[in-house]
Amino acid sequence: MTKLFRPAIALVALLVIVPASAQDADPLPSWNDGPTKQAIIDFVTKVAEPESGDYVPIKDRIATFDNDGTLWLEQPMYTQLAFALDRVKELAPEHPEWKDTQPFKAVLEGDMKTLAASGEKGIVKILAATHAGMSPAEFQTIVGDWLATAKDERFERGYTSLVYQPMLELLAYLRHKGFTTYIVSGGGIEFVRNFSEGVYGIPPAQVVGSSIETKYEVIDGEPTLIRLPEVHFIDDKDGKPVGINEYIGQRPIAAFGNSDGDYQMLDWTTAGEGPRLGLIVHHTDAEREYAYDRDSSIGRLDKALTDAPDKGWIVVDMKNDWKEIFPPKQ
Amino acid sequence: MTKLFRPAIALVALLVIVPASAQDADPLPSWNDGPTKQAIIDFVTKVAEPESGDYVPIKDRIATFDNDGTLWLEQPMYTQLAFALDRVKELAPEHPEWKDTQPFKAVLEGDMKTLAASGEKGIVKILAATHAGMSPAEFQTIVGDWLATAKDERFERGYTSLVYQPMLELLAYLRHKGFTTYIVSGGGIEFVRNFSEGVYGIPPAQVVGSSIETKYEVIDGEPTLIRLPEVHFIDDKDGKPVGINEYIGQRPIAAFGNSDGDYQMLDWTTAGEGPRLGLIVHHTDAEREYAYDRDSSIGRLDKALTDAPDKGWIVVDMKNDWKEIFPPKQ
Repeated sequence: MTKLFRPAIALVALLVIVPASAQDADPLPSWNDGPTKQAIIDFVTKVAEPESGDYVPIKDRIATFDNDGTLWLEQPMYTQLAFALDRVKELAPEHPEWKDTQPFKAVLEGDMKTLAASGEKGIVKILAATHAGMSPAEFQTIVGDWLATAKDERFERGYTSLVYQPMLELLAYLRHKGFTTYIVSGGGIEFVRNFSEGVYGIPPAQVVGSSIETKYEVIDGEPTLIRLPEVHFIDDKDGKPVGINEYIGQRPIAAFGNSDGDYQMLDWTTAGEGPRLGLIVHHTDAEREYAYDRDSSIGRLDKALTDAPDKGWIVVDMKNDWKEIFPPKQ
Repeated sequence: MTKLFRPAIALVALLVIVPASAQDADPLPSWNDGPTKQAIIDFVTKVAEPESGDYVPIKDRIATFDNDGTLWLEQPMYTQLAFALDRVKELAPEHPEWKDTQPFKAVLEGDMKTLAASGEKGIVKILAATHAGMSPAEFQTIVGDWLATAKDERFERGYTSLVYQPMLELLAYLRHKGFTTYIVSGGGIEFVRNFSEGVYGIPPAQVVGSSIETKYEVIDGEPTLIRLPEVHFIDDKDGKPVGINEYIGQRPIAAFGNSDGDYQMLDWTTAGEGPRLGLIVHHTDAEREYAYDRDSSIGRLDKALTDAPDKGWIVVDMKNDWKEIFPPKQ
């Protein structure tokens, strides 16, 4: 595994700003050579080449990326859910009633079966207790503190290092070729904004995601925003094209996802006129990461996998297309 | 009035991309020298100067601008309302029932008094009939066609040329100094996006505004977005800081408005730590534009004008601070 320690890719930060010279050599060094890598490079090259006939002006080079399972790990549970469960445990001393109230009781007892049975209603209660009642700035501090210390059990690494090395290279490559890269996540917009700039090189304003209501109030003379325990927008499935239209105001020419939750984003993107790229990350590598698709409750990839050939979407075979999965451990 | 024809400012487009050399000479040539202009230049200079002690990194140099009355004309009625009324007249042949139905009857008869009396309910009906039931792309075509031909009666000019020359210079100056400039408008986000890039140099993704609901649907195999006659978000007053937080995800360090609808945006912006700039355009020039403030039903400026000295907000006296109001006629 010495490859993992190649000095040139020792830091995520370095990879996000791969110098132009390195890019020209091989923009996607963690991708194995083959039709998948070639299809990506062919698309990017032709839209950036004024003489190609498929040239797209820089202002229209919009690329949207799902986050969970496309840019970072989503198994065995969404990272934001891991955050919420940890947060319930941390807040439990202030809420003695949780010991006898579901779904909090299940969380505190580690009873994932009962938690799962509590369904969407249970999750909404947990989100309300852990994501609302503070300002966006306070929420950022809480999330940042958690991300700085929490670790995935299997990989024994922090979550922000469990991002896909090949996708970091792809983000950098696209930006190098004049694309603006956006995250379009079913996850919470303010949760993702916490690390999107540092980890992916994507600033807060280029993150689209699900959100809860926020209210403005002047408290003791201090203008304040407060996060409310009410859903504002669900940026998943049908919501993805709607969110893209609302936040970005343009149809992307390239979209990247990994589950049926990205189907509509891919479909809307690739149905547009001119050159289009749709790409699905297929998790096929149980040894280095996870293997799951049609039967997974997290990141289910069924209809999009079936329809990909007809739609012309590229399906990345993680096991065979990716040389590395994660950046090397620091 | 030969000044109006100075070749150097002959085109709006040229002014949006004022070359650096011209900027270094006088970045705000249409502003009269004096404390207002100096306060703007002092603020911009210190936040962009690494040695100043008030330095702000480029990623945090966020500036937000109201649109109606701050960047372009809003009298005698909001331009978007003029669009809606024209659109009612254009659609009337397809809706014979409008001849006997309010508020459409009032619009068709030019009876502004009855229209005003129909209040918010009447306006919502007009917006539903003129702004919904089509895709965002179709709406863009309709708005673009209208803006290309419609003219303001008093100035006998198209609306996109009735933008404030000093503010165009300010936008360009801020961007030249590393700011990202956003529009944060009470007007419709997709209406403003139609001309924001061409007129202000502000791309669609940097426009925040009011919106109606949009739904995603696959029609005859074609992925489609459809604008619905339901309000999604009102980006005015309390809504401005909420919208900024949602779309931009950062608190601006500079905010520009002209009415009490901008109060909360200015207050939230300037209450932040570090160097801050709040600026209000006060319409004081009945001869070259309009003079209105506390008693106006459009763009009322009352509480913000009263509180400006305490809050440290700069109040632009249009008549005395601005050499030019609009770009020269082409």
